[in-house]
Amino acid sequence: MTVRAGILGATGAVGQRLIQLLEPHPEFEIAALTASAESAGSQYREAAKWRINMPIPDSVAEMTVTETDPGEVSDDVDLIFSSLPSSIGEEVEPGFCEAGYIVSSNSSNSRADDDVPLTIPEINADHIDLIEVQRDERSWDGALIKNPNCSTITMVPPLAALEDAFGLDSVTVSTLQAVSGAGYSGVSSMEIIDNAIPHIGGEETKMETESRKLLGEFDGAEVSWLDANVDASCNRIPTLDGHLENVWTDTTEDATVEAAKDAMRSYPSLDLHSSPEQLIHVFEQPDRPQPRLDRDTENGMAIAAGGIQETETGLQFNCLAHNTLRGAAGASVLNGELLLERGYL
Amino acid sequence: MTVRAGILGATGAVGQRLIQLLEPHPEFEIAALTASAESAGSQYREAAKWRINMPIPDSVAEMTVTETDPGEVSDDVDLIFSSLPSSIGEEVEPGFCEAGYIVSSNSSNSRADDDVPLTIPEINADHIDLIEVQRDERSWDGALIKNPNCSTITMVPPLAALEDAFGLDSVTVSTLQAVSGAGYSGVSSMEIIDNAIPHIGGEETKMETESRKLLGEFDGAEVSWLDANVDASCNRIPTLDGHLENVWTDTTEDATVEAAKDAMRSYPSLDLHSSPEQLIHVFEQPDRPQPRLDRDTENGMAIAAGGIQETETGLQFNCLAHNTLRGAAGASVLNGELLLERGYL
Amino acid sequence: MTVRAGILGATGAVGQRLIQLLEPHPEFEIAALTASAESAGSQYREAAKWRINMPIPDSVAEMTVTETDPGEVSDDVDLIFSSLPSSIGEEVEPGFCEAGYIVSSNSSNSRADDDVPLTIPEINADHIDLIEVQRDERSWDGALIKNPNCSTITMVPPLAALEDAFGLDSVTVSTLQAVSGAGYSGVSSMEIIDNAIPHIGGEETKMETESRKLLGEFDGAEVSWLDANVDASCNRIPTLDGHLENVWTDTTEDATVEAAKDAMRSYPSLDLHSSPEQLIHVFEQPDRPQPRLDRDTENGMAIAAGGIQETETGLQFNCLAHNTLRGAAGASVLNGELLLERGYL
Amino acid sequence: MTVRAGILGATGAVGQRLIQLLEPHPEFEIAALTASAESAGSQYREAAKWRINMPIPDSVAEMTVTETDPGEVSDDVDLIFSSLPSSIGEEVEPGFCEAGYIVSSNSSNSRADDDVPLTIPEINADHIDLIEVQRDERSWDGALIKNPNCSTITMVPPLAALEDAFGLDSVTVSTLQAVSGAGYSGVSSMEIIDNAIPHIGGEETKMETESRKLLGEFDGAEVSWLDANVDASCNRIPTLDGHLENVWTDTTEDATVEAAKDAMRSYPSLDLHSSPEQLIHVFEQPDRPQPRLDRDTENGMAIAAGGIQETETGLQFNCLAHNTLRGAAGASVLNGELLLERGYL
Repeated sequence: MTVRAGILGATGAVGQRLIQLLEPHPEFEIAALTASAESAGSQYREAAKWRINMPIPDSVAEMTVTETDPGEVSDDVDLIFSSLPSSIGEEVEPGFCEAGYIVSSNSSNSRADDDVPLTIPEINADHIDLIEVQRDERSWDGALIKNPNCSTITMVPPLAALEDAFGLDSVTVSTLQAVSGAGYSGVSSMEIIDNAIPHIGGEETKMETESRKLLGEFDGAEVSWLDANVDASCNRIPTLDGHLENVWTDTTEDATVEAAKDAMRSYPSLDLHSSPEQLIHVFEQPDRPQPRLDRDTENGMAIAAGGIQETETGLQFNCLAHNTLRGAAGASVLNGELLLERGYL
Repeated sequence: MTVRAGILGATGAVGQRLIQLLEPHPEFEIAALTASAESAGSQYREAAKWRINMPIPDSVAEMTVTETDPGEVSDDVDLIFSSLPSSIGEEVEPGFCEAGYIVSSNSSNSRADDDVPLTIPEINADHIDLIEVQRDERSWDGALIKNPNCSTITMVPPLAALEDAFGLDSVTVSTLQAVSGAGYSGVSSMEIIDNAIPHIGGEETKMETESRKLLGEFDGAEVSWLDANVDASCNRIPTLDGHLENVWTDTTEDATVEAAKDAMRSYPSLDLHSSPEQLIHVFEQPDRPQPRLDRDTENGMAIAAGGIQETETGLQFNCLAHNTLRGAAGASVLNGELLLERGYL
Repeated sequence: MTVRAGILGATGAVGQRLIQLLEPHPEFEIAALTASAESAGSQYREAAKWRINMPIPDSVAEMTVTETDPGEVSDDVDLIFSSLPSSIGEEVEPGFCEAGYIVSSNSSNSRADDDVPLTIPEINADHIDLIEVQRDERSWDGALIKNPNCSTITMVPPLAALEDAFGLDSVTVSTLQAVSGAGYSGVSSMEIIDNAIPHIGGEETKMETESRKLLGEFDGAEVSWLDANVDASCNRIPTLDGHLENVWTDTTEDATVEAAKDAMRSYPSLDLHSSPEQLIHVFEQPDRPQPRLDRDTENGMAIAAGGIQETETGLQFNCLAHNTLRGAAGASVLNGELLLERGYL
Repeated sequence: MTVRAGILGATGAVGQRLIQLLEPHPEFEIAALTASAESAGSQYREAAKWRINMPIPDSVAEMTVTETDPGEVSDDVDLIFSSLPSSIGEEVEPGFCEAGYIVSSNSSNSRADDDVPLTIPEINADHIDLIEVQRDERSWDGALIKNPNCSTITMVPPLAALEDAFGLDSVTVSTLQAVSGAGYSGVSSMEIIDNAIPHIGGEETKMETESRKLLGEFDGAEVSWLDANVDASCNRIPTLDGHLENVWTDTTEDATVEAAKDAMRSYPSLDLHSSPEQLIHVFEQPDRPQPRLDRDTENGMAIAAGGIQETETGLQFNCLAHNTLRGAAGASVLNGELLLERGYL
């Protein structure tokens, strides 16, 4: 028995990745696709400008796209994956939750809300039980669970490994982010060819807040955010997929390169369908990880790290993840798998 | 009367930029071009794979290229601009100095030597008198003066402004560097299309040492390097020209964004031919400076800064410079102009 | 005395180029800027996302943008440069002509109309007198004059030289077009990084029809289009500016490479302000022209040609022009200069 | 039983692709790797700058690389895949053939030789028996078989379909070629970012001669080349993998778009391990095929076609293939499979 799943925002860049991941998924089946009003009523093949280097799955190509409204989605759908612009997500996701749907959302709205679980299953699966608090407070039959921003997901697993091993006092991060993170129409080619843009609106704040919530402690009632200073500078570069990040940490205890590598390599993954065998792949070559060479590691679901060095006050390293797989669609699917494993579905 | 100048390594990416700058220069005239042994004897037009978007100047196109050897360069040449790979620079530059030539070099060898002036004229012109110490120690009639690495030049002017205004305790920098910084054959297109490389061999060390020497105090006998921790992480991205850098500083005194902007904008330029009207252009738009839009500011000789923000312990900002103009060829030419103004030529 | 000029669509990619060209222009002054309704009322600095690597001219930055409506443009404006999407151009340009404005338009609507002059001044300046026919037929005080599509402009000057020298029976052309030809939001970076697109909607037809009209004969009443078959295949590639084209021609008379070079090099330019000294620059190196190296030849207003070879039935060559300068904004300005010289202003 | 295979030039871009294809191959096993003298003696992991987005196979990473000399390769190797620069291929391949090895070569030397089979198995498998003629003439125990150039392979399958259906009188082709076709150090990033190069040395001649040999008739003694005029213009663009081509054909008989699609879609593939299920995939969307979206069709071994239109004298279409898979390494492997099936191994 598979869980029937709907995709909100199915024609966008992340929506297409959700289809790529869900179509062959053993636990989920795609049962509903929504998009903006202009696309509603047309076949997915017509509605989407498909950009992935594999054909649209046949089973999806001829599905009819509906409006993004709970009344348009069949009642036998149990799980909703949401990949909407945050302003629209903010508007429509609560309606789905009220209507009884469990929503695994990649949209950036509500991620910092006290009663909304923000999870990377391998890192803080226990936070998922914030759903109980949420249902109490919001009187929802459904539930809303979020995955973090793509640039946050990239650095949090290695940071979690270092936090466990040495404690983290502060984090400074500079990102080199791929254009697909901004969606299909997010970055014009005239902006980015032979260029780089040292600013991504709102991204720095997302990294600074989400990482502290993810690395926080959940006591059954609330999450105490990690007490560390996080400072981010975000850049867009002419790369298609894969966010690369330079990270500096001040550690509470003294850290060595070897101990840091051990901590990263031994950080446990999970047994969920989309989890990689090894969560963090640590490269020894100083010029790795690189976006084009390493973003597809373990189907794009692993985190790649390298360039680990000691500094005066801690450690420096680089990390990389596929931003639309591990950083977006894959993150939502993984949260869906966690919901299923924990009995919420 | 113009100074007759020779160019060592005239066919390379920086050599071509030197020709672009020197050909119309009112104080210098190009009198000698050297390259590797294979090119010696051929016309410059044949020897060079010209990559600049203007034609080779007529006066240069038909000059004969010689080997990089003092014996091959006419005695009536007074000034040598050197843009050689560092291993070759190390080998041949001392010979030119012994033979009486003054060498303004962009090559990375000897930059950290105690008796070699490493100068950005607007920042530390007084260091040039290390030449006296150098001549005492090395018994040269000529002299060797260096400009720093392109990635160092980009950040040092804004750092100098902040050091003057608030004092610097530490600097952390992440770079997004253009491919031209590696020279014509430095970065294969197969390496960099749809990619980024989080490592540039030796570059981090150059930034960490050169910046401290440049910001140090010269007492007439030696340079006391700036006592601050500098930590760099260097990345290559698919951009042609223009290095962009994210910088974090811990300042000794409290700093505000407005005071930092004032310090940068009021930092004095010089009256040298190639100096910009304003050394540091501070942008108010958060998404500037950008390489393609801002690298050519004031003929590529200005530093662009932006994104200035306060942090827990100091300031964060972005900066940008044209790496083969301000960061290499223009830096050497500017040092030549300083040598002339100070009477060394 | 300068002619007061307005720019329709002033915030777009071509509109920005028009400002770049008109601001320092000795014959024209910018007196009005229009854009879409959302931008109307705001300063140009706010309304435009400026993408050119020079600052917005001060005199323009603070001008107020109005709606694209004749009633919103001051009566003392004499000349209108139009750079609107064709659907909007079709709607609003006639209103400006009725209201007495002379419109030099880059928009693609009406280019094939019998009574609308489609001109490249160096090629078919005499066609401009179609304005008389137009005024008779349309009872306009103003007039509408068009420049061709950027990809057409690139190949027509060398084709005109070959037509004059040998006669043309057929033309086959494959284009490699820069992204700026599609405007700021025309090509998403997700579409074009590490890619090429073998189709540009409507472009092939434009090249096939416009080139025949441009190379046709005007007898004072109508233009007899060139009787030659023109067949185009249009491709978008990841280049910012500069359209490169591979052209094959069947010539009526036998042609040699040397005679073809002579014909191109000796093809006359005009004495208009924006005309290049030499209209067609012929390169001898087989790997030229190249977009980045050659698009700026003579301020981006020259045509570059190269790779001329004999084939079984005629000649093969490559050509290149800067698509937003010679191919769009510069083409409209040049038509404005022609209107002025011929007494229409 | 698998055939033991050696790879000449194993560290290059095509050599790496050969390893990618041969390591999991059911019929071949990698038994020898050669490279230049400097690499000889080192492990493959050290010798190669691996650029493919999967790790080096473990079984290969620790193999020792030898010099490219028959004496250095074990006698129990039966088949040699050669991916050498043509000047080196010309020098060393005959020695391997004399020493008894069968050489399936991607190097461009000898492709036009009368007694050397040049084959695309799905197109002209029967030409392989030129080996008999070759052995007679050259007294070799081994044999030399070639696959064509990457840009030739891309267009020949659709041309073969059209030749069978309508007859071909002439072919005109313009290519948009990826940088990987020039090998790892073939195209500098400084050459190609924001640029295109309208010339690839020798490539036009290769396309013009090889396509006529491939489409020729073999009568058991010699190949009569196709009697058609082929005219090519070759361009390099900033794309990593995948050659896109615009092709015009004059057909002997009248051709329609539908008949052309049928001819292409029904052109038979083979039952060899690396042959695609369908040799030519015909796209209906006018903007396909595109390199990034379509180069991996059927593991990069299919040919993609689209944009088929009627012209005055024949047909126009676009085609695409993965240049280092179908166009190089995969082509050599496929020839190896053909040799095995036909009993030459």
